[in-house]
Amino acid sequence: MKYRNFPMVPRVVFGRGSFNQLEEILSPKRKSDKEPFIYIVDDVFEGNDWLIGRIPLKYLDKIIYVSADEEPKTILVDQFRDEIISEFDKLPSGIIGIGGGAMLDYAKAIALMLTNPGSSADYQGWDLVKYPAVYHVGIPTISGTGSEVSRTTVLTGPVRKLGMNSDFTPFDQVILDPELTKDAPKNQWFYTGMDCYIHCIESLTGTYLNAFSQSYGEKSLDLCREVFLEKDEIDKDSQDKLMMASWHGGMSIAYSQVGVAHAMSYGLGYLLGTKHGIGNCIAFNQLEEFYPEGVAEFKVMVNKHQIEISENICKDLTDEEFDIMIDIALGLVPLWENALGKDWQKIITRKKLRSLYELM
Amino acid sequence: MKYRNFPMVPRVVFGRGSFNQLEEILSPKRKSDKEPFIYIVDDVFEGNDWLIGRIPLKYLDKIIYVSADEEPKTILVDQFRDEIISEFDKLPSGIIGIGGGAMLDYAKAIALMLTNPGSSADYQGWDLVKYPAVYHVGIPTISGTGSEVSRTTVLTGPVRKLGMNSDFTPFDQVILDPELTKDAPKNQWFYTGMDCYIHCIESLTGTYLNAFSQSYGEKSLDLCREVFLEKDEIDKDSQDKLMMASWHGGMSIAYSQVGVAHAMSYGLGYLLGTKHGIGNCIAFNQLEEFYPEGVAEFKVMVNKHQIEISENICKDLTDEEFDIMIDIALGLVPLWENALGKDWQKIITRKKLRSLYELM
Repeated sequence: MKYRNFPMVPRVVFGRGSFNQLEEILSPKRKSDKEPFIYIVDDVFEGNDWLIGRIPLKYLDKIIYVSADEEPKTILVDQFRDEIISEFDKLPSGIIGIGGGAMLDYAKAIALMLTNPGSSADYQGWDLVKYPAVYHVGIPTISGTGSEVSRTTVLTGPVRKLGMNSDFTPFDQVILDPELTKDAPKNQWFYTGMDCYIHCIESLTGTYLNAFSQSYGEKSLDLCREVFLEKDEIDKDSQDKLMMASWHGGMSIAYSQVGVAHAMSYGLGYLLGTKHGIGNCIAFNQLEEFYPEGVAEFKVMVNKHQIEISENICKDLTDEEFDIMIDIALGLVPLWENALGKDWQKIITRKKLRSLYELM
Repeated sequence: MKYRNFPMVPRVVFGRGSFNQLEEILSPKRKSDKEPFIYIVDDVFEGNDWLIGRIPLKYLDKIIYVSADEEPKTILVDQFRDEIISEFDKLPSGIIGIGGGAMLDYAKAIALMLTNPGSSADYQGWDLVKYPAVYHVGIPTISGTGSEVSRTTVLTGPVRKLGMNSDFTPFDQVILDPELTKDAPKNQWFYTGMDCYIHCIESLTGTYLNAFSQSYGEKSLDLCREVFLEKDEIDKDSQDKLMMASWHGGMSIAYSQVGVAHAMSYGLGYLLGTKHGIGNCIAFNQLEEFYPEGVAEFKVMVNKHQIEISENICKDLTDEEFDIMIDIALGLVPLWENALGKDWQKIITRKKLRSLYELM
């Protein structure tokens, strides 16, 4: 197809306290008392009765607590899938991810790997997934990644950091309850919010852009500016708006792509384990050449919120290590093509990438 | 549920010329050569090879040409449904609406009535539909109604003008090809575009509004202003943007509602057959009291594009006729509640409505 037939999340609830509707939403999707709902939950919430106490566990339902300290890995996705299959006689009724981008991506990937054979590493790429996933639900507890609405789940595998991009990847249901973001640590709030801001800058300046993606990207950017530039505190209104910024920012990728910062952040993440939001900020901070206005505005936001963005994290790397990052970044062809057009390889040489990584 | 679990259109294509992908999109949805695709097409396109020649008819597929001169009627929906059932041994593989809001609403209503017993008039209201519709596809050829993304299909029935509002109503697939809007007559372009503009004003000033609906409504309004205030001609960019304005405007109703202009326009439509877009303009033109800024901006747009908005269409009506319109308008409780809050009945008396209708 010339234009992608974009899969949208077919059901969405938005509202403060909408998390309380989880049982009502899931009940009709329960296939039997032998086919549980499996919750993939950020382990920072372990023991947090305000959130965990509202998860409506019944029959064989189970919570798997997962650390978000590291980016999601194909090996862990496969392991969770294997454990679920060996523990239960039947496939689960659904997989519910509760957390930031990592938990949402785990939930999407596990749901896909319950119905697709082999390793999740086999499906890193575009449109490699063959069968529909198990019913899966995304409930973000921090705003910015856009994972709640995207057709990808980004995984670090044995040879690459790359998403399982497919029409089967998007959630069947999303619950947007801005109240769940109220306790996010300020640094994390900023880094994840900047993931959204950087999405938008990369999408809006990209060559792939059309009026569909532009309209979503512009609205998302307006909301980011309201939250990060105009407001002096993180109030309820700001929680609501950042959650919508993330949603629209994710939609803006539908007919567009991210760009230079994301490509380079994937290299940092693969080699150094730098988390996605932080890696984007570290990369974007040095990309005035490609995004002069965006980077200038980003620096204003960094100063306003007194956030520290690491520098020189690459200073002690070996040639081999730089080469690994460069290989990962260069593999993300659609991102470069979106950022710089069909002839991107004339601009982005290995030497150029090395010099950029050396700034970071 | 406290917050609606909103059904979104699960598949959308956007792009100039994306109409050419129709066959590729529909093929996997064809159940057999005995279960046809039925196209509901505005009869202004009859003989228009540029559009009709690209409809991929196969086997028993059929085009039904329908006039949009009058607003969609329950009696015609039932009649089309009965004809389809008597002509074919099996239910169609799908219903495809091609045209403005009337054709989209006919397609939605026919698809619903092929699986729900009785008359479409039985389902005018909120959440009365019991069974999922036949697969249905919306392809707008004019922008503004938001019908392509809404959970309603507005019909004039024996006793009311009211939509079949349900989770089964939204399209399964939408094709947004802005090129299809290139030949819309200027007056119609304006009236239908104003349907969107008025949606947004009513939604954004309403009491139901939340951050979800607000973000869509604001973006839609921005796009309307670009198209109707900033631009001096209807170019491709303006076609693209108005199509997105309509989409976002429709989405803005998700957690909101329309308001006074729509309620009163329904009365005009029911009694006088005034078409929805025109009726909205006639009503809104006299509603400075409720929407002072919106009406002022509307008048600027009317002047800029030299559009004539009818006045005094109610001047010769009888008391009985006024009462009919007032009954229709008063029946739309959620619209009044959104516009004016829980105590709307203190403001909107029959006398007040009569005086407003007398201005129109």
